[in-house]
Amino acid sequence: MTVAAVGKARRGRKARKADRQATDFTMLPALQNQLPRTEPMTKDQVARIDAASMDILEEVGVVFRDPIALEDWRKAGADVRGETVHLDRGLVRELIATIPECFTYTARDPQKSLPFGKDHAIFVPMTGAPYLRDLDDRRRAPTLSDLADFHKLSHMLPALHSSAHHIVEPMDHPISHRHLRITYSSMKHSDKTFMGMTTSPKNAEDVIEMCRILFGAEFLETHAVVTGNCNGNSPLVWDETMLGAMRAFSKANQPVLCSPFVLGGANTPASVAPTVAQLNAEALSALAYTQVVRKGAPAIYGHYLSTVSMKSGAPMAGTPEISLMNFMIGQMARFYHVPWRSSNTLGGAKTFDAQAGYESATTLMAVLLSGCNYIWHSAGWNEAGMHCSMAKFVVDAEQCAMGYRMAEGIRWDDFDAALQAVRDVGPGGHYLGHPHTLENFQRAFFMPELFDNNSIEQWQAEGSVETAERAIAKARVLLDAYEEPCLNPATEEALRDYISRREREIPAADALNQTH
Amino acid sequence: MTVAAVGKARRGRKARKADRQATDFTMLPALQNQLPRTEPMTKDQVARIDAASMDILEEVGVVFRDPIALEDWRKAGADVRGETVHLDRGLVRELIATIPECFTYTARDPQKSLPFGKDHAIFVPMTGAPYLRDLDDRRRAPTLSDLADFHKLSHMLPALHSSAHHIVEPMDHPISHRHLRITYSSMKHSDKTFMGMTTSPKNAEDVIEMCRILFGAEFLETHAVVTGNCNGNSPLVWDETMLGAMRAFSKANQPVLCSPFVLGGANTPASVAPTVAQLNAEALSALAYTQVVRKGAPAIYGHYLSTVSMKSGAPMAGTPEISLMNFMIGQMARFYHVPWRSSNTLGGAKTFDAQAGYESATTLMAVLLSGCNYIWHSAGWNEAGMHCSMAKFVVDAEQCAMGYRMAEGIRWDDFDAALQAVRDVGPGGHYLGHPHTLENFQRAFFMPELFDNNSIEQWQAEGSVETAERAIAKARVLLDAYEEPCLNPATEEALRDYISRREREIPAADALNQTH
Repeated sequence: MTVAAVGKARRGRKARKADRQATDFTMLPALQNQLPRTEPMTKDQVARIDAASMDILEEVGVVFRDPIALEDWRKAGADVRGETVHLDRGLVRELIATIPECFTYTARDPQKSLPFGKDHAIFVPMTGAPYLRDLDDRRRAPTLSDLADFHKLSHMLPALHSSAHHIVEPMDHPISHRHLRITYSSMKHSDKTFMGMTTSPKNAEDVIEMCRILFGAEFLETHAVVTGNCNGNSPLVWDETMLGAMRAFSKANQPVLCSPFVLGGANTPASVAPTVAQLNAEALSALAYTQVVRKGAPAIYGHYLSTVSMKSGAPMAGTPEISLMNFMIGQMARFYHVPWRSSNTLGGAKTFDAQAGYESATTLMAVLLSGCNYIWHSAGWNEAGMHCSMAKFVVDAEQCAMGYRMAEGIRWDDFDAALQAVRDVGPGGHYLGHPHTLENFQRAFFMPELFDNNSIEQWQAEGSVETAERAIAKARVLLDAYEEPCLNPATEEALRDYISRREREIPAADALNQTH
Repeated sequence: MTVAAVGKARRGRKARKADRQATDFTMLPALQNQLPRTEPMTKDQVARIDAASMDILEEVGVVFRDPIALEDWRKAGADVRGETVHLDRGLVRELIATIPECFTYTARDPQKSLPFGKDHAIFVPMTGAPYLRDLDDRRRAPTLSDLADFHKLSHMLPALHSSAHHIVEPMDHPISHRHLRITYSSMKHSDKTFMGMTTSPKNAEDVIEMCRILFGAEFLETHAVVTGNCNGNSPLVWDETMLGAMRAFSKANQPVLCSPFVLGGANTPASVAPTVAQLNAEALSALAYTQVVRKGAPAIYGHYLSTVSMKSGAPMAGTPEISLMNFMIGQMARFYHVPWRSSNTLGGAKTFDAQAGYESATTLMAVLLSGCNYIWHSAGWNEAGMHCSMAKFVVDAEQCAMGYRMAEGIRWDDFDAALQAVRDVGPGGHYLGHPHTLENFQRAFFMPELFDNNSIEQWQAEGSVETAERAIAKARVLLDAYEEPCLNPATEEALRDYISRREREIPAADALNQTH
């Protein structure tokens, strides 16, 4: 291609400038991960983990602390002894075979619906923080209004595909009513997909009811619109609360993350491969149970992974073993043809300092190269999940956008045109004015907005602002620019009515004991 | 294996405690990278880059701004037109075929000699900073004493395999004499391998002479002991200073990094794959030239990679395109069967803040998964290389140790024993007291010393110390504990005599014009 030909396709200087100036809130499509996966296990080693997990399921068994689940397992043909369910590998394989390898997440804005599974991945913000670091970098108890702010940011930040649920715990609201307000906030402040509270079976049912109001009861039967999470009690225990909540989601044909909660070395063996074998057994037992509840219901191989400091007992993140375990778990999930979830940007730093950056970036790279599908905790996590940082939230989201770009892989469509530029420029020249550069520079190389690459003199002239402060300023700008997505007034009223009714029904004091 | 059998091999509580308390300065062996490499290009795409690079070498040519090199190329059968050397692909392939795919770096402590190339990789600290951030976090001009401190830290930090050369520029010493003092400092304060200055051909020859004094002239003929670096002037130019220095190293059979200096979008096309094609052509031309100088001399495919912000012109690090280019360049180097160099922990932050952490960790993951051999700039880099941070130096070195652990891959030797632990512990138990845990916890999960994973209450009780401050404290402790490795007094005297003689011969004012 000649220079003239390259130049012809080029847009005007003005149009390019306008592009640069407008902040784009358009959500990125679901990531289609083009990178080869990092697979440190041979086929034989994958088979070895699988065999070890199946041995555990058959011989050691898994405790289901829930009478309904035990009865379900009996009917499904499992060997139930007391609360311990011994699962034959044939039964496990048969059950998990009906889990969809991929499906679509439907958002209330159909433009924001997302293909999910296999190569497709989505970024979901952190959840569950009992504190936040706010726009003044104060660590304090969050309110419903803080939660709304996080939902607004999730709505606006292009790399985030979900508004999740309780990014922070709204402490100003009775605990027994929170799930209703949290769900409403996710639904109202964003039109992206979201998560549903699984703090009790009844709460999970409330979430499903609210989804029926938002999407229609019939629609829900055939469309995944909300994600639940059920944590295991490693080693090898699932409790009544989680199992009841799981049933509520699976019965409604909504995806649920089956997440063993690994504190490596404390509730698993002090070794990488055996930890994965145990975690894999735990995940399989829950994945299988979802299919006992409803054959064909979407379910996601999950896990929360940390390693434990043997000096202090503290959970650690960004460690080499977590990266290795992510690589391995990706291999196992693909071996079983099920989508899987990991955790992104975890870390134990108390402030948004260098530690937070190292830990988060290490984890992001690991989960992308692991081929993870449901990339949870992708923004805001700090202090081992004890607080969500407003500053870190926006930086993490930009890091996700950068990881997204990396995982999109290499562009080849302009290769010949660019080689012509090499000829045009020749030895010792420069490319800044070349038509190929003018045409491509905006998308060629990611320009992070929240990282400062200027000279120290420029940086000082602009007030010597460090990352955390820069990020807070950005969060303020975003929140100022927020526009609420349109929600049908009748739907909104129906949601409000449902919440009012349930808040009358549920005693505000009866906080923690709502199982059937 | 039974619990009793596991317990038998276990060492006493006291011995384990002593292990924990002693800080270990033992250098890690050269990393043998067990992870599969991230290879985003198909074989056809590798061939496409190769073909494009060869086209560039044949048709566009490379400028060698050096009469000796031009004469050498004429004799070698290249098509030389003015200063432009057109290299036939057959000639290039023939020349690079004699570059050793792997060799050994000999250190003056033979225990610290390092296998290099193919799966073997080494971590080398940053170099070239005109400023440092010191133990008081002050940004200031460095002295010879500061340089010595960085060499001491390099000597003590286990994951660093080299003391490099001018980690910081000793500004208190005349520029024309610096290379002598820098080389002496590298040699004296550490017995690890090191780098040699290539600031002029004469300076490079001084480095080689000093290596002859340290190792013996004959020994040097057959052993790689020092590494030179030669930056290209992209696009497609090698200058006289670099070529003369390169010749000094290659003639002495010492490895040289052939490093195109990429500012993506400014001196390369604004696109990833074409940038790699140009860089690859540049690297090949220099690699080929080392073999014109001396067939079989070790040479390393190098590059310095940054992308340029089209907003400000500033170089950027930790961007997705840099990760992709690292993956691709690894593929190209392996295609040519030559070892290769990349840059680690780069970044543009002005302080050791979150930005520095994100950028560094992203790059570390990318270079490890690229299968890079010579992992340069592995500690201390900040502010686009304008300063070396004492705090970041020790944190980066710990991050390298963590990356090292990840790249070692998965341990399988205790798999069956650990599965026995799963049976012993059973559902709902914990592993903390199990013999397998007691035997393995110290090495099972990396416990970063410089990252705080304690609760906020503990962290506050300990003074609310952020990463940078913690790292400075660690650097102080290390420097206090430093013990100089033994250097033969006669050798030391000979080195000092050489420096004295050369400092008499080289005018202290004649700083920048020392080419032959």
